[in-house]
This record gives sequence, C-alpha cells and structure tokens, in this order.
Amino acid sequence: MHKNIKVIAFDADDTLWVNETYFREAELAFAKLLAKYETANTIDQELFKTEIRNLELYGYGIKGFVLSMIECALELSNYKINPKVIQDILEIGKQMLNKPIELLDGVEEVLQNLQPNYKIILATKGDLLDQERKLEKSNLAQYFHHIEVMTDKKAADYQKLIKHLDIDSSQFLMIGNSLKSDVLPVLEIGASAIHVPFHTTWIHEEVSESDTSDKNFHTVLNIKEVLPFF
Amino acid sequence: MHKNIKVIAFDADDTLWVNETYFREAELAFAKLLAKYETANTIDQELFKTEIRNLELYGYGIKGFVLSMIECALELSNYKINPKVIQDILEIGKQMLNKPIELLDGVEEVLQNLQPNYKIILATKGDLLDQERKLEKSNLAQYFHHIEVMTDKKAADYQKLIKHLDIDSSQFLMIGNSLKSDVLPVLEIGASAIHVPFHTTWIHEEVSESDTSDKNFHTVLNIKEVLPFF
Repeated sequence: MHKNIKVIAFDADDTLWVNETYFREAELAFAKLLAKYETANTIDQELFKTEIRNLELYGYGIKGFVLSMIECALELSNYKINPKVIQDILEIGKQMLNKPIELLDGVEEVLQNLQPNYKIILATKGDLLDQERKLEKSNLAQYFHHIEVMTDKKAADYQKLIKHLDIDSSQFLMIGNSLKSDVLPVLEIGASAIHVPFHTTWIHEEVSESDTSDKNFHTVLNIKEVLPFF
Repeated sequence: MHKNIKVIAFDADDTLWVNETYFREAELAFAKLLAKYETANTIDQELFKTEIRNLELYGYGIKGFVLSMIECALELSNYKINPKVIQDILEIGKQMLNKPIELLDGVEEVLQNLQPNYKIILATKGDLLDQERKLEKSNLAQYFHHIEVMTDKKAADYQKLIKHLDIDSSQFLMIGNSLKSDVLPVLEIGASAIHVPFHTTWIHEEVSESDTSDKNFHTVLNIKEVLPFF
C-alpha cells in the first residue's frame, strides 16, 4: 500500500508514550494552587491564553509551559502570590521532566517490524533534551536512526526535514496523533501520513472536521494497525 | 592543510554572533534586583550553583536560565521576594530571547568562501527555536545546510552527529569558541577543530591549560584567519 517509502517518522508524545495526560494533571495542580484567586475554569482559560501568547517566544515543551504558569500566577493574583506558590510551580515542572515513560500499547511491536526495512526517525517539536531523555528511558532508542527536533510542524518545516533527509516527499511517511501537526501538513507537501488518535488532545492541536474531510489518509485506533499498510 | 574535510560545523553562540555578553548583562540585572538580600558576589555564585544543579534537567539555553534565576531568587530571599521581582526576571528572559543579532567580524566572509566547497552546518547546544530565530535574524541561513542541535557537546554527542551525517570522523571539522565543547571532544573522536576564542567564557566552559597542552589544533584570533587552512 505504502510502496516507495524510505523514511518513516514517528511523532513522540502521545504517539509512542503518554504525554498530554501529564499536562492535564499539571493544569489541575496549577488551578488548585491558585484556587483562592479564581475559579478553575478561569485559571484554565488564562493559562491557555498565556501559553498561546508566549508560544512564538518560548516554543513547545515543559520549560516554556512552566514559565507561562508563573507569568499567569503573577497576573491572576495581581502580583500578590505567595512566593512559595512559585516554588510549587517550579516543582510541578521538575516532576513533569522527571516522569517515567509509559509506552502506548503496541509501539515496540510496530517498531520491531518496521525497523529492518525502513529508516525510522523520531520527529517531534518538543525540547531536544527532554525528548532524548524520554527516548533513553523508553528503551526504544535502538529502533531510531536519530531524533529530528522541529521548531514547528507546519508544511514548511516538513519541507525542510525532507530536504535535510535528502529524499523525495513521496518517500516520507509520518505516523502521529495530531491531525494538525502530524497529518495535514505532511499531506500538503505530497507525503503520506497515518493518524493514530490519542484520547486527549491539547485544544491548540484541534482541527475542524471540514479541514480533513477531503484528505487522503488512514486513521487507526491502535498503532499496531499500521502494520498491514506496509 | 585540512584535506579530506567534507562537513564543516560552526558553533553558533560567541562564534558567529555575540551571546555570552547578554548572559553577563542578565546576571548583573539579576544581582541588582536582589541587592537587598545579598552581595552581588554571593548572588552570582548562588545563581551559578543553581544553574549547574539544574543543568541535567533543564539543559542549556535561556528558558532554563530564567527558571534557575527564579529558583535562586526564591531561595536567596527566603521566599520573601516581591512577586514583581519575579515578573522582572521573566522580563529579563524575554528581552534575551528578543535580542537583535550582532554578527562577529569576518563571519559572513568566511561562510561565503567555504560554502561552495563544503557542507556547512550549525552545531549548537542551545534551544532549537532560539537558534533558528537567531539564524533567521542573522541573514546567514543561506550558507547552512541545516542546524544540528546537540543536547551536549561531549565526545559521544559528536560521535552521534558523525553517524547521523554518514561521514568518517576524519571528514569533520568543527570551528568554535569553546575549548571544552567545540575543540577537545572533537579531537577525541579523531576529527579536526579550530579554536576561535571569544573574550567572555562562561566559567562552566573553562578548561585548564594542561587539558590542551598536548592537543593538536589551531587557535586563531579572528575567524577570518581560518581561511588559509582550506
């Protein structure tokens, strides 16, 4: 089905292992810390706004998320926050960075099957240090040729990646959980993609149904179901 | 002199453009913000200790530096810091991320001369987003095949880079300002390096003279002086 493919790129967070769940937990912990200032709902919305406002400057990843939580806490408290709460926020971030890896079902089997016949890479827009640490902890490093950290996952970023890999876009296939980041921009440059949804999606990654209705890609509910395509 | 070389990697910060100077300025601003709690000297030392303690978790780059400044401010003030000071620290970080690029003398001339005959890459241990932004602002992007962000610059990291580039270590030459990060580990894996010192070096990057005395590399005082080696 997918002939001609030379490089298979896997998204990391929420495709190979659990990630978004930890951000949701961190947001809940953050809302609790600020409960005396605002409702959980307002805190959630203000944090999201702060993250989006800072996204261009900080990029994706836990460190930028922690900086946005601190900024949001200062603003929501009108600069009256107890400094110990700032310490608690730093601690939330450190715990996120130190989380053990929870592999998603079927991941290793898929990598074992595909690795002998393809160049397998990890394509992520997280933090390089954080993603290398996770790959190390996951015991999956042996399956990957290398990690590609992308500042963003728009069509232009995939174009750059294809050029860097010295292949044609028809030889590239992406597997990931985000329609917005792992599927649509990949199809846009003439490459292939398989969508493996995760139960939780950051609102910034959501796309409307009309964006995907005329697009040519497969969705599978467990990553193991990608194997018959090769 | 350097026959056989296929890939020339340039360090970015303090090799192509000014960087360490901005960290020194930020440290001065930080010490001023905390002047009521401690002497500038103690603040400096405590900040350095905090950075080193967090280096494994946060890695290199401005975001980790800002998180360490906040942690240090909380501790030095015994959690009595005015939250507005935390805001000021966030602002120091944002200003660092938004700094214009100051190219070092001779950089563009060197790239223009070498680019036709070599694959030129940028090899940095900073933050990918931040380094891409700087490369964009520098107007030097056209000279570089791509950016390699490395979590660290130890011999093993260069070994990984060589493997990723699909070349032999004898075909790799590194140009950079840090003996510890850009020269010694490169020589260790049998590749070549040219040292172009910058006037300011972070204490964490300093090496003793005995570490370099028997090593085979050239030091040039202006990057233009690398040209006769090719």
